[in-house]
Amino acid sequence: MQKLVDGIHEFQDSYFTSHKLLFERLAQGQQPLALFITCSDSRIDPSLLTQTQPGELFIMRNAGNIVPPYGAVLGGEAATIEFAVSVLKVQDIIVCGHSHCGAMNGLLHPEAVDELPAVRAWLTHAEATSRIMKENYKHITEAAPRLTATVEENVLVQLENLRTHPSVAAKLARGELKLHGWVYKFETGQVFAYDAEKGQYLPVEETVARSSSVSAELPSI
Amino acid sequence: MQKLVDGIHEFQDSYFTSHKLLFERLAQGQQPLALFITCSDSRIDPSLLTQTQPGELFIMRNAGNIVPPYGAVLGGEAATIEFAVSVLKVQDIIVCGHSHCGAMNGLLHPEAVDELPAVRAWLTHAEATSRIMKENYKHITEAAPRLTATVEENVLVQLENLRTHPSVAAKLARGELKLHGWVYKFETGQVFAYDAEKGQYLPVEETVARSSSVSAELPSI
Amino acid sequence: MQKLVDGIHEFQDSYFTSHKLLFERLAQGQQPLALFITCSDSRIDPSLLTQTQPGELFIMRNAGNIVPPYGAVLGGEAATIEFAVSVLKVQDIIVCGHSHCGAMNGLLHPEAVDELPAVRAWLTHAEATSRIMKENYKHITEAAPRLTATVEENVLVQLENLRTHPSVAAKLARGELKLHGWVYKFETGQVFAYDAEKGQYLPVEETVARSSSVSAELPSI
Amino acid sequence: MQKLVDGIHEFQDSYFTSHKLLFERLAQGQQPLALFITCSDSRIDPSLLTQTQPGELFIMRNAGNIVPPYGAVLGGEAATIEFAVSVLKVQDIIVCGHSHCGAMNGLLHPEAVDELPAVRAWLTHAEATSRIMKENYKHITEAAPRLTATVEENVLVQLENLRTHPSVAAKLARGELKLHGWVYKFETGQVFAYDAEKGQYLPVEETVARSSSVSAELPSI
Amino acid sequence: MQKLVDGIHEFQDSYFTSHKLLFERLAQGQQPLALFITCSDSRIDPSLLTQTQPGELFIMRNAGNIVPPYGAVLGGEAATIEFAVSVLKVQDIIVCGHSHCGAMNGLLHPEAVDELPAVRAWLTHAEATSRIMKENYKHITEAAPRLTATVEENVLVQLENLRTHPSVAAKLARGELKLHGWVYKFETGQVFAYDAEKGQYLPVEETVARSSSVSAELPSI
Amino acid sequence: MQKLVDGIHEFQDSYFTSHKLLFERLAQGQQPLALFITCSDSRIDPSLLTQTQPGELFIMRNAGNIVPPYGAVLGGEAATIEFAVSVLKVQDIIVCGHSHCGAMNGLLHPEAVDELPAVRAWLTHAEATSRIMKENYKHITEAAPRLTATVEENVLVQLENLRTHPSVAAKLARGELKLHGWVYKFETGQVFAYDAEKGQYLPVEETVARSSSVSAELPSI
Ligand SMILES: [Zn+2]
Ligand SMILES: [Zn+2]
Ligand SMILES: [Zn+2]
Ligand SMILES: [Zn+2]
Ligand SMILES: [Zn+2]
Ligand SMILES: [Zn+2]
Repeated sequence: MQKLVDGIHEFQDSYFTSHKLLFERLAQGQQPLALFITCSDSRIDPSLLTQTQPGELFIMRNAGNIVPPYGAVLGGEAATIEFAVSVLKVQDIIVCGHSHCGAMNGLLHPEAVDELPAVRAWLTHAEATSRIMKENYKHITEAAPRLTATVEENVLVQLENLRTHPSVAAKLARGELKLHGWVYKFETGQVFAYDAEKGQYLPVEETVARSSSVSAELPSI
Repeated sequence: MQKLVDGIHEFQDSYFTSHKLLFERLAQGQQPLALFITCSDSRIDPSLLTQTQPGELFIMRNAGNIVPPYGAVLGGEAATIEFAVSVLKVQDIIVCGHSHCGAMNGLLHPEAVDELPAVRAWLTHAEATSRIMKENYKHITEAAPRLTATVEENVLVQLENLRTHPSVAAKLARGELKLHGWVYKFETGQVFAYDAEKGQYLPVEETVARSSSVSAELPSI
Repeated sequence: MQKLVDGIHEFQDSYFTSHKLLFERLAQGQQPLALFITCSDSRIDPSLLTQTQPGELFIMRNAGNIVPPYGAVLGGEAATIEFAVSVLKVQDIIVCGHSHCGAMNGLLHPEAVDELPAVRAWLTHAEATSRIMKENYKHITEAAPRLTATVEENVLVQLENLRTHPSVAAKLARGELKLHGWVYKFETGQVFAYDAEKGQYLPVEETVARSSSVSAELPSI
Repeated sequence: MQKLVDGIHEFQDSYFTSHKLLFERLAQGQQPLALFITCSDSRIDPSLLTQTQPGELFIMRNAGNIVPPYGAVLGGEAATIEFAVSVLKVQDIIVCGHSHCGAMNGLLHPEAVDELPAVRAWLTHAEATSRIMKENYKHITEAAPRLTATVEENVLVQLENLRTHPSVAAKLARGELKLHGWVYKFETGQVFAYDAEKGQYLPVEETVARSSSVSAELPSI
Repeated sequence: MQKLVDGIHEFQDSYFTSHKLLFERLAQGQQPLALFITCSDSRIDPSLLTQTQPGELFIMRNAGNIVPPYGAVLGGEAATIEFAVSVLKVQDIIVCGHSHCGAMNGLLHPEAVDELPAVRAWLTHAEATSRIMKENYKHITEAAPRLTATVEENVLVQLENLRTHPSVAAKLARGELKLHGWVYKFETGQVFAYDAEKGQYLPVEETVARSSSVSAELPSI
Repeated sequence: MQKLVDGIHEFQDSYFTSHKLLFERLAQGQQPLALFITCSDSRIDPSLLTQTQPGELFIMRNAGNIVPPYGAVLGGEAATIEFAVSVLKVQDIIVCGHSHCGAMNGLLHPEAVDELPAVRAWLTHAEATSRIMKENYKHITEAAPRLTATVEENVLVQLENLRTHPSVAAKLARGELKLHGWVYKFETGQVFAYDAEKGQYLPVEETVARSSSVSAELPSI
């Protein structure tokens, strides 16, 4: 803990002092560029990764960057998403998985979470990921690529879950919101993004976001 | 979005290049110093604030830095806490509220979240905060200090909720875990911590952590 | 009730007598062509509408042809869908809304379901429909076209919900399942189907099903 | 799917054309004779079985014709029942089980639904059936009669569950609603109904409905 | 509190001293005569009322003597009932309401529990009582008799809820359990019991218990 | 049952006759001294133990004297506590465990509750107790002392859960409520109370209540 307290001192003496105006301005309100959903894993730092400053990313973090489908109404995820979309009007949501994810590893090895009832229950919301792995990836048996595929598929599954949130659905339908699926491989510093057109993950700088408006121009019968 | 992609480039060229060894080592596993629970608010950057590097803080973020009491079994918060305490063996948990918190403002002004059903439902887990404000703070009527008091009280309420989580309770009972209640006033760069002995918030560098072992030496009747 | 008992007699004397072999064969097991999800409304008869015989349609019916997103784990809808997809291996799922739907009318007029707490709670799973109407259809104010648009949008919303069901997600991902959004206008006998390419409802015979494989060819990074 | 589209054509050309007036009249509203609750099984066609026309049966269908007790407040069953009883004022509710029911088979053989988490969770609402079979039917060990008894008992269990729904309870209490327990043996075309007086299932034409008013004449102490 | 501590002293000196053997015998195990379910109201003392000794009544008490229908699976009521019926093998269950019940008063006057969210939520399980009062007792408008009728009806509603509990259902079905509905009018010392045959409450000594076996002799079709 | 009916007669002839005035006075309202939470176990009689009369103890009883943390919003415990604290204004709450508790035994031996799904689910709210026993009491392996320690620890766990209830939290914060943890060893007639200062259970007459105000004097930053 002393390290953290010392860090705060350092922050106050350096960064804060040189960015006083920024923080004062932020006291008037926030207008983040995007909602960034990622894992609680200590090896990920969204602001460092995207070189963004305070005020630029609204960040939701939990074990496994999981977004339960709408309806488990008392959950923090639904509220955080609703706040970002309806109040802060963010226009981009990124779901960012990562390499070496412990939660995804637990999904592949349920016996590992036997003594972790809360984790086990939580992984229910990644049951689609689990089933996709069991049914569609029988051919990948080696541990490392199997975990990679799980992380990748899970990001897509959580994007589907995200689409059931009313605030998200309404904004998608009128073409004002974009959803992005990313995987951060921290040991190489690379970020891959899902390219819906091509149906594959590509280096983030080469991809086109998945905007898929559902019914923006729905004509009446 | 382009700003984020550009940021990633910059990160790869600068920070990542100069910290390659760190990231390679982290691929072996994480051993974070603490579990840091804070709001999704874009104006807070826990790593910047504590000047910590990747691998040092396990971070959970949601609107209002709320920790539902254990038992709403499918929630992400319970899983994230269980993972941090039982698997990663963190020895400190910080619940960090902040000034100008929109979620806490919604708690004080329920009419403001009328059209936000998910936020409204989520704030149920801060109902104790709300009741404390209504019953015990009738004398503070001005908006700014009332919001400050709400933020402070909510951190204490969430610490109580945290104590109901089995992994936390067991570790507290044997004196191996410390809980910390912080409030970050970003516009001044200050961090206040709750001092249980004195029953008040003090600048973080002056406080003693709240360790309160519940029953570590429980003698048999 | 006497009418129903008399009807059973008539059925036994006519249809059953002439289809004995069919029923005997069906005692060996069912292999339905599709899962047909529609409203409980008495004016809809899926078998009559599609001129199918016993054994051909697996049918789920509830007020409003609603499919809660996966995770409200004790619901009948999740179980029925899982049974149809994983056990019976259906390859097509139709969500069929209809004109003059009372449930959709309740969604547009919440005050009408004030004394119906179970209906009101149930419509939570169509909250996305409700929000789409409020945010994106301000220009349609007349009752009849507004109800039509609600029925149409709700079918699309329920298709999104359906995609969160693990058995559905896994099969979609490998291209073995097709989802269809229909609206049945019983007073004219017409059926419209959603054409994802064109983004509109067309007479069912002119449309192409929405198969959208999510990740069937997902390449590993 | 083509078969279904062709069927719609046939329906439009034949049945619809000859019943245009019926459908036009139904656009004014529905007044169904009864609420018919049955399994999603494709081998059951309630309208065909009772020789009823569009507008005559309000139909709820799910795997196992299960009616969760009131209180699992977000379920489709509660809403559908409430709508039928309170809005449409139906005076009869039929719960109709059937021979060869896959859901009831799953109840007898839990190992068969091990990979079907949603089905397994759903069968919780038939736990009373399961317990009745285990405790009271030890003497019936052969598969076929054991399944038959399960189907029969489950209909009675679901009728008890139905009685906990407020709209049902209130109407039963004033003698304006009748509940009926049926079992349809599709391979012989027979329908059996539970005769509460005699405590047994009899051919439907020989039985008296179970009306049991709970407290219609409750005198004040 | 001092009064309670003094009372314990008095208990130890008098009752305990004279009943030592009873308490020693009870350390071997309990075999209660019945499960007694009543309100938490301080004015009711089930043991005093029935003049029973320790070991004779297994007692469940909550606000309003409410028994949620089975399925709200994490509730204390379901567990307590299951333990009493399946482990302790009680053969009688009494649901005992009482005059001047504050919970039932809250049911009649929802505005009185506006600031009591937990009470309001709990009364959901007496929604059937509430609806029976609204729909069937329009003619009783005076406060006192209306509350009496509510208490009486609620006992019957909770008995229906009780029947959905699997352990109860199975034992009822084989005729080994009896359910009793009582109302205790403490200001006169009277107890009324519901007589199912006559459909009314009578002084407890004049009534016949409600045993209603559901399917004890269920013959196979 | 006849014994209970006879007991009521005896009560009416003796206790009621000699306490008529008390009961008449109580018809005006109750003002209990405390909320007493204990197990449903038939061997415990709170009124006998504390030698209190009708009107003095508001009593909540369930299997295992468990208090789920606030948030499982439809539970009877939350409502009963809220009613006692907010409406009746009790100033003391006692959670009283007891020797030979069957529920606590079930917690230590999960295999014993395998066929008791409702009990198993209910014990989830004592998972912290269970984890404390597993992690911190490895050295106590003998059955009797292990059960004793479980009972003692569970009382403390339930006190923590109790503190999450908003009405309790608010009153604790302003120093108007005291929580007491007791264990009743019925075979010796002894009652032990937890002494927070000393961190151990002592004979009830020697202890000081645990009042721990959380934030009564919370100063604003
Ligand atoms: Zn991770
Ligand atoms: Zn905030
Ligand atoms: Zn409809
Ligand atoms: Zn079936
Ligand atoms: Zn009461
Ligand atoms: Zn006990």
